[in-house]
Order: sequence, then structure tokens, then C-alpha cells
Amino acid sequence: MISPKRPSGFNELLPSDQLAFNAMISVIRLNYEQYGYAPIETPALELAQVLLAKEGGETAKQVYRFTKGDTDLAMRFDLTIPLARYAAEHFNELAFPFRRYQIQEVWRAEKAQAGRYRQFYQCDIDILGSKSMMADADVILAARSAIHALGVEDAVFNISHRGLLQGLLESKKLSSFSTSVLRAVDKLDKQSSKAVQTEIEKLGINKQDSADIIAFTNIKGSALEVIKSLSSLNIKSEKFTQAINELQELYTLFIAAGMKPREISFNMSMARGFDYYTGVIFESFLSNSSVTRSIASGGRYDNLLGEYRRESLPGVGASIGVSLLFAAIKERLAQGPANPAHALIVPFEPETAIYCQEVALTLRRSGLNVLVYPGFERTGKQLSYADKLGIPFAILCGSTEVSKNKVTIKNLKTGKQVTVSLKKAAATIRKAL
Amino acid sequence: MISPKRPSGFNELLPSDQLAFNAMISVIRLNYEQYGYAPIETPALELAQVLLAKEGGETAKQVYRFTKGDTDLAMRFDLTIPLARYAAEHFNELAFPFRRYQIQEVWRAEKAQAGRYRQFYQCDIDILGSKSMMADADVILAARSAIHALGVEDAVFNISHRGLLQGLLESKKLSSFSTSVLRAVDKLDKQSSKAVQTEIEKLGINKQDSADIIAFTNIKGSALEVIKSLSSLNIKSEKFTQAINELQELYTLFIAAGMKPREISFNMSMARGFDYYTGVIFESFLSNSSVTRSIASGGRYDNLLGEYRRESLPGVGASIGVSLLFAAIKERLAQGPANPAHALIVPFEPETAIYCQEVALTLRRSGLNVLVYPGFERTGKQLSYADKLGIPFAILCGSTEVSKNKVTIKNLKTGKQVTVSLKKAAATIRKAL
Repeated sequence: MISPKRPSGFNELLPSDQLAFNAMISVIRLNYEQYGYAPIETPALELAQVLLAKEGGETAKQVYRFTKGDTDLAMRFDLTIPLARYAAEHFNELAFPFRRYQIQEVWRAEKAQAGRYRQFYQCDIDILGSKSMMADADVILAARSAIHALGVEDAVFNISHRGLLQGLLESKKLSSFSTSVLRAVDKLDKQSSKAVQTEIEKLGINKQDSADIIAFTNIKGSALEVIKSLSSLNIKSEKFTQAINELQELYTLFIAAGMKPREISFNMSMARGFDYYTGVIFESFLSNSSVTRSIASGGRYDNLLGEYRRESLPGVGASIGVSLLFAAIKERLAQGPANPAHALIVPFEPETAIYCQEVALTLRRSGLNVLVYPGFERTGKQLSYADKLGIPFAILCGSTEVSKNKVTIKNLKTGKQVTVSLKKAAATIRKAL
Repeated sequence: MISPKRPSGFNELLPSDQLAFNAMISVIRLNYEQYGYAPIETPALELAQVLLAKEGGETAKQVYRFTKGDTDLAMRFDLTIPLARYAAEHFNELAFPFRRYQIQEVWRAEKAQAGRYRQFYQCDIDILGSKSMMADADVILAARSAIHALGVEDAVFNISHRGLLQGLLESKKLSSFSTSVLRAVDKLDKQSSKAVQTEIEKLGINKQDSADIIAFTNIKGSALEVIKSLSSLNIKSEKFTQAINELQELYTLFIAAGMKPREISFNMSMARGFDYYTGVIFESFLSNSSVTRSIASGGRYDNLLGEYRRESLPGVGASIGVSLLFAAIKERLAQGPANPAHALIVPFEPETAIYCQEVALTLRRSGLNVLVYPGFERTGKQLSYADKLGIPFAILCGSTEVSKNKVTIKNLKTGKQVTVSLKKAAATIRKAL
């Protein structure tokens, strides 16, 4: 005997959760299609040299990479690099701005810990080939709409812009420090302002400038307040001014599209780890949930295809952490059924099996999900099977029902049953659903 | 620069094909839920010792297997072994008969050749924990219904039963040869009867018995003819008689469920490679397609969980080769659009961007898919973008439209355009779709 277990860190769902998860994914798909994003999927395996063209650090260590024959292969660890490869490979077959959504698993050999898995779904949208702030607004509005469509209305979008910190450093002639300062600022969610300021000073930046940088990262609040605070800093940098203008434009588009001011928080302490962001960045959190990690994030990049093509292609993307979002949805919903059937057909003796097929066919044609119990167990056993699966109705087909072309419909919640003609069966069930 | 290419043998779709493929998968999902199958998904990676518990031969060589840390991992190469592991692992959390559908990719390092890929989708349904022929009928009828729901109506189901050949050998006291004879018979689709007969003789079976086996495999035709031919063989074996009875019961259930006799072919030359089948087996082919390989297949097994649990659990399954089926559907359909949007909103100058958000919101609320072009390009460029993507309508929003709360709707096929109030826009587009 071999113990039937999964590798550590690999999750899978029982049918009731899988049904709920699939329903969530369907809603997200429909929403993204309503916003004019086209689906793509990329292979699980890519050539390691292509997938890891840019990555040398922490991510590379987490990648599932191996050799088959003489090919060095790697499993995708995000949906962004595969998008860049896809867009570069099919460049001449795509129309730009290229808008795609992609909902697929990624694999990372992370340390096993509660709530972190080595395989999880990501759900990304991106617009490649547009510099317009309308594109930035579009991906964030579409992600917000997807989250709303799931009945989750307490998401707050934290917004910042990479150009602000860059502009600030530029005005202080500290542009050469921009990557290292960004890395320090990125730690603000885990470390105190003081510790981060000390780290910045250690880079060789003087006390006053370091204090100014920390003061800048402390700016947060409503869009209008923050824009006012930023303007009052009087920073002489085109980059800084442009970033403020872009944030203002973004905010106007948000409000025009029906976003409420309370859903938007401008927050200069947010840095987002990835190097490739160059403009607007965002992270979204739920206000009323035990899920505290960000459920959606993204931003603008200037040159995602850089490793694969000479022309630069600006774009912007938003990624929903659907596995996290599912956890948030689950804590708000009652446990669902473990089978999609609305009714279980209970055959009584071998002679009724044929009639059961007819009943099933009739009900399915009317759009109901119907399961015929395969075989002739005790009725009690069949009903308890329906109950375990959360199937709300049983349809009893004995010889009396067969001879009269009728069915007996039993409501498994109330225990009540009614005998009706086969023609009326679907309507009877629909009414009671 | 790194060349942006995929590993050899790995396919991916352009958006227009991905949209069509996803539509196909949705139809199959809905259909299987109508038949009361619940969805599950299993991880891409399994422990190699679990996944390869049974496989030692050709399949093992094709498996993507590697070590990460000190874990020996393998990518799933079918959906049957993962189902067995899933059912064994979650045995006490599932209700039996356990009915599941699973639509996921599998990976096999096959020789690269036209139409064969190293990653492809499988779509399996199984019922675990039922011996009833109603279960055999259920999986085949559900698979047929899925194929019909896709508008493919020329599938013919070849049916046989493992018990027949076993019964025949039993009656000749040749049961010890059953595996080797099965392997020989399995070659009938590639080799002549004569070659196969010679192979059987070489096993040490005499000329007459070998000829009888070949004569048996030549029996094919309508269900009623074949059952008559099989009965007239007068084979003294309980197994043989039971197999005939089961085929008869299956046929009765097929007809009761609306299957036409022309869709059913009983064919004794079919052996199906896998060892684990023990009862009914089937393969389905399209009569009017350039796709000549079987698009669906499956059968009954007695003990799928054998490696993982002591109790045996009989079951039956059907697998649709969705990638092949997609090829068959594609050759019957016109090329579809590359974007799901019904309309492209064309903003004219920065001042109209806000109004465009309002228009998009209004149309999406009415259920239409609407894409706002991000930015202010020449109108001609935007219209040609819509055209390339197969988006049927453009909605022009200039300052005149904004001031009157109207939109100009341009039908991109006919070139005609009409200006209507925003309220009437959705209805106008729906009417013309």
C-alpha cells in the first residue's frame, strides 16, 4: 500500500469548495470580458532561459526548474513574465493596445506556512501598448468591478506613483540612490520609520534628506488632501509634477466611473517590491476581513518586453490574488452543496430505470441539474446520499409513478412531498428552489 | 536579447481561439453539472511514488519528473491516477457513489509530431463506488450530451466489454493468456487480422483457438446483430453470459435516454490499452471530420484505488479529448473575434474621457461587453483596431455627443451610423447584434 498524499504545500479543494471557487472564477471572467479583456493561457512549462531572463534573486530559488532530455525547463511562477514572452512571440499577430486576462496556477517552492501554498491561482489583467492614464484607470476599475461582482464591497485601493519618490530624489540630486531608497521604503510595512530612516542614512544620504524622504512616505489620506500636501512640498522636478498630474487625472477617472472617495487612499509609504514598475502603483485591502494581505495589486511599467524585443512597450496591469479572495468570500458565505444537482432521481426497481432516463432528460431540457442514482439501494440510503451532497430535492420513481407518467417530488429540507405529472415536474421544482 | 519562444511541443492559443476554446469548456462544464457531476481539480505536481505506483512502462518514460529539495515530484500525465489518489485521500469526506468531472491539463514528454502536444487538456468524468450498469450508461450518455451540446452530432460510440474476450478464453481454458491475448488484439487497428492471429499462435495457443479469437474480434455492427452473433457462439462461460446481459442492459438504457441506434456500434475488435478496465469499454469517433482519432473513450474498472486502499471501489469513467474535439469544432466554424467586446468606445479629446466612463458603465450594466479605447488616437486608427479585434460596433463620443448626453453608434460591418440618447444606446446595439 502507498499512502495517498499530496506533496507538502499543495492544496486541493473538496467538491463544495471547488463549486464555490469555480463560481467565483466565472464571475471574474464575465466581468473582465465586460471590460473588453480577452483571455489567454500560457503553458505551465517555459524554457528556463526565457522565464528567468530577468530574475536572479529570491524568485529564482523558488522556481521549479529541471531538465528533460537536454531542455532546461521551468514552471511559471507568475503570469507577468509569460505575458511578456507571449506578447513578444506573437507580436505581429496581436492588435495593440493588447488587453488580456489570464487566470492560471503558478508554482513557487516557498517555505510551507499557514495560508501560503506552493501552487495557487493568479488572475491578471494587463493593457500592453498604451501610455494613457485611461489605461491605468481601466485595469484598476476592472479589478474593483470584479471584486464588487463577488459581493465584496469593502476593498480600499491604496494608490501611489513611482515618479514621486524618483522626483523627490531628483530634486535632491540623489537619483543614483533611487533603487536602494526604494528597497528601504518597501520595508515600511514591517519596520518602523526610524529603522528605515537609519537604513537610508547608511546609504550615505544626509540626515535632513533622509528625514525629508521619511516625511514624504508619511503622506497618506484622501486623494485631495494628499495632492495638496504633495504640491505644498514645492519640489522642483518635472517628474514629480507629472506624477501629481497623473494621480489627479486618475482620481478624476475613478470618480467618473462611480468609485466612491472612501474606496481610494493615496498612500506614499507604499513602494511595491518589483523593479519593473515606473508609474502608478496600487494595492488593495479589505477593511472588514480576517484576510489582511493585499487581495489585488499592480501598476504601470514602461518596458515589460525589454528582454525579448528592442522596441519598448509601455503597459499597466492588475493582479487579483484569487486564492486569498476566495478565503475572504468563504468567511462571508454559508457552506454550499457538494454537488451541482438540483434533484436526485431515485429509481425504485430495475423496471423503473428506463422511466428515470426519460424523467432526467425532461428535467435537464428545462435547464435543471439532475442526477440519476445509479442502482437500486434502499430509498433511505439514497435520500441520505442526496442530503450529504446538499441536493435539495429527490424525485421518486416507483411503478405507480411510471404507470401514470408522474413523479413524486420530495423536498429534502421540509420533508414534504407531492406527486405531479412529469410535464409539471420542472416548474414545481423551480418554484420551490 | 533572448528569443521569446516556447519549449518544443508546447502549444498556446491566440485570443480568438482561446475565446472559442473557453466557450467550448463552458458548455462541457454546464452539461456535466446538468448530469450531477461535481468539479474537482488536483495539483499539477504529485509525489512521484504516488503517481507512478502502478506505471512502470512507456508512460513512466514520458512523465516530467524531478527532485526539488529532497522531494521526488512528477507532473500529472492523466486525470485518472490523481482521481484515485484524491478519492483515497479524502475517502471519509466524500459521499459515494462519488461523481466528479475534472478539466485540466496533463503533461507527457511525447515525441513531437503534428497534432500531438506535450501539454493538453483532458476532460474526465467518473462515478466511483457503483457496480450498476446505470453508471456505465450515465458516463457515456453524459459525454455524448456534452459533445451534442457543442453542435457535434456525428459521434459514433464503439462499445465492447472486457468480459467477452475473458469469457471466451475461460471457456477454452486459456484464462492464463488473457493479458497477452488482449495486448495482441489491441494491435488490430494497426495490424492485419492475419498478423495478430500469428502473434496469438506464437503465445502457444493452437490454430483453431486462435482462429476462434480472431473470428470473435471480427464481430461488429448494430447492437442487436452483435448480441445475436455473440449468443449464437454458444460459449459456456458465466462471464461471457453476464457480459452479454450487461451490454443488452446498456443498450436499453441508451435508447431510453434518446440515443439513436446509428450512434451505437458494438465492436469486438476494440481492446483499449489500459490494464485496469474490467467491463464495458468504449471509444467514440466522428463520422464527418478530418479528426480520425477517438475523441472520447473510457470504461469500467473494478479497483482503481487498489494501490492506495484495501477496500476495492468499482467505477466507470469517460474521458473527452477536448483538444482534439476543439480541432473538430474549429473546422466547422468561422473564425471568431479576438476580443469579447460588443463595442469599442472611442473618446475624441481629453474632455470626453469622463463621459466615456459613464457610457461604458451604462452599457455594461445592461450586460454588454464594452471596451474604452485608452487614449486619444486618430479615429481611423481606433476603428481599424476594433476591426482587427472583430468588435462589431464603435461608439463615438465627441463634444457634441457629450453636451447632448448622446452617443453615435457606428456599425463596423455596414459602416452605417446613428446618434441616439445614452439611455437608448444598449437597446440599439442589442437589436443590431
